[in-house]
Amino acid sequence: MSHVVVAYPGNEALAASLATATGASVVRLEHREFPDGEIYLRVDGGVDGKSVIVACGLERANGKALGTYLLASTLRDLGARRIVLAAPYLGYMRQDRSFRAGEGVSARYFAKFLSTFLDGLVTVDPHLHRIGDLADVYSIPTRTVAAAPAISSWIAQNIDAPILIGPDSESEQWVSEVATGARCPFVVLAKKRHGDRDVEITVPDLGKPTGRTPVLVDDIVSTARTMIVATRHVIQAGHRPPVCVGVHAIFAGSAYEELKNAGAAQIITCNTIPHPTNAIDVHPAFAHAVLEMSRLPAGQSN
Amino acid sequence: MSHVVVAYPGNEALAASLATATGASVVRLEHREFPDGEIYLRVDGGVDGKSVIVACGLERANGKALGTYLLASTLRDLGARRIVLAAPYLGYMRQDRSFRAGEGVSARYFAKFLSTFLDGLVTVDPHLHRIGDLADVYSIPTRTVAAAPAISSWIAQNIDAPILIGPDSESEQWVSEVATGARCPFVVLAKKRHGDRDVEITVPDLGKPTGRTPVLVDDIVSTARTMIVATRHVIQAGHRPPVCVGVHAIFAGSAYEELKNAGAAQIITCNTIPHPTNAIDVHPAFAHAVLEMSRLPAGQSN
Repeated sequence: MSHVVVAYPGNEALAASLATATGASVVRLEHREFPDGEIYLRVDGGVDGKSVIVACGLERANGKALGTYLLASTLRDLGARRIVLAAPYLGYMRQDRSFRAGEGVSARYFAKFLSTFLDGLVTVDPHLHRIGDLADVYSIPTRTVAAAPAISSWIAQNIDAPILIGPDSESEQWVSEVATGARCPFVVLAKKRHGDRDVEITVPDLGKPTGRTPVLVDDIVSTARTMIVATRHVIQAGHRPPVCVGVHAIFAGSAYEELKNAGAAQIITCNTIPHPTNAIDVHPAFAHAVLEMSRLPAGQSN
Repeated sequence: MSHVVVAYPGNEALAASLATATGASVVRLEHREFPDGEIYLRVDGGVDGKSVIVACGLERANGKALGTYLLASTLRDLGARRIVLAAPYLGYMRQDRSFRAGEGVSARYFAKFLSTFLDGLVTVDPHLHRIGDLADVYSIPTRTVAAAPAISSWIAQNIDAPILIGPDSESEQWVSEVATGARCPFVVLAKKRHGDRDVEITVPDLGKPTGRTPVLVDDIVSTARTMIVATRHVIQAGHRPPVCVGVHAIFAGSAYEELKNAGAAQIITCNTIPHPTNAIDVHPAFAHAVLEMSRLPAGQSN
């Protein structure tokens, strides 16, 4: 069974990376909106009998949820044997329990929805917090690719004498992994979230300014509140302006500008969500997992 | 089993109409976006064991598709026994076949999706063209409410000596119904669509300007191309400026302004999609059908 790649609009660079890495060709997708705003899709190439890799990051997924569903349905009607979603960022993982009466668990619902029309899903560092494993909510096979090795390698190559600072105690294991890979020390912040944009943090004692470069690392940079507050604390304590490294560059609203203004020496992210800060390439590791997943027999369960 | 109504954001007036007409109370829905754009929902009231009517028109449905799915999933987890979608406008009905190789049939896919999480659907005059009946694509019970009686009644009460003009031969039966109800003559246009916004029409001979008021009627007014071209033709032939009546006020982009500028004497729509032109009230008939549907036992098939 041969492979082809289809780019959901906005994911053309990712699709090209995947095609190159997996030796598949890219099938063109015609995509526009009807005047009334409804999505029009036309697959401009053969997918009959093929394993189709749909490149589509699931950041800002409200419209893409329907779009990828319509695309997968179309591919299925055109004879696709297997449809794997290559989503470097997996949205809707943060409402992972009902925190107040009347709330639902959208992480679970979103997973259930994707599981109805895909044969497999590959992503990078999903936000697993109260849900321990994607298999707990996805009924299709999933693979998660770790960004840590690529981040370690970037830090080791680009930062002289780094000291890593993780956002909170839950991230300790992940930060420790990155630090081990980069062969440098690390600490974690004590963090308390009061609201979407209201984060209180305590910066541990980094010791006397020693000449080490503080490197703040986090998985998702959305409002960047944690990094902004931590950047200010670190600078006020007399340390060098920190380098800020994130996996997923959401940067809600003016978060990027605010983080720059807070005094970050550099802002660096992985290329899971297209953004000018993308400097750490996770596409090779991602493509490897996608190829593996697209070779699984259709219908294989977790 | 008692009923409650929940308004999807933007459908508060419809929910209030439905609550009044059905004797149900409105359960408040807390709705916002997280900073990263993801939808947050919280149902602020009891739905356990109840039949829930979700008021949500499906115009501009790309984001609402996921939103209504997350809402229905939440309601289900909170114990709702039955969930009926009250959607005065039903989107994604126009791509009702594959017109070119590589296209899918989004009308079919959209129906299949809604059928996975709802127990029933009520709408007003869906665009049934190549799909003859909603039951052909929906696997849940559906009810369609006809706008024709309310339109006839409005025309009879507000227009002196009308002559109805329908948009094309497919609309003939519908226009004839409206004309019968309004006790007036009608004709239909010959229409040829070249593209989303490119419509060629031929206006039949309306006879000598006789003092009758031309009334253009159509189901969906999206780009309003047909009405704009017909309005100009009618005026150029020496007739009075026509009254334009539509069921569903989509009005894509500047369509409304263009139709006004074309010389329409009045532009009138039904209140299926909120718009300043809403003057024909279909909520009473709609509420009646919704109440009927919400009383059906859960799981009853078509």
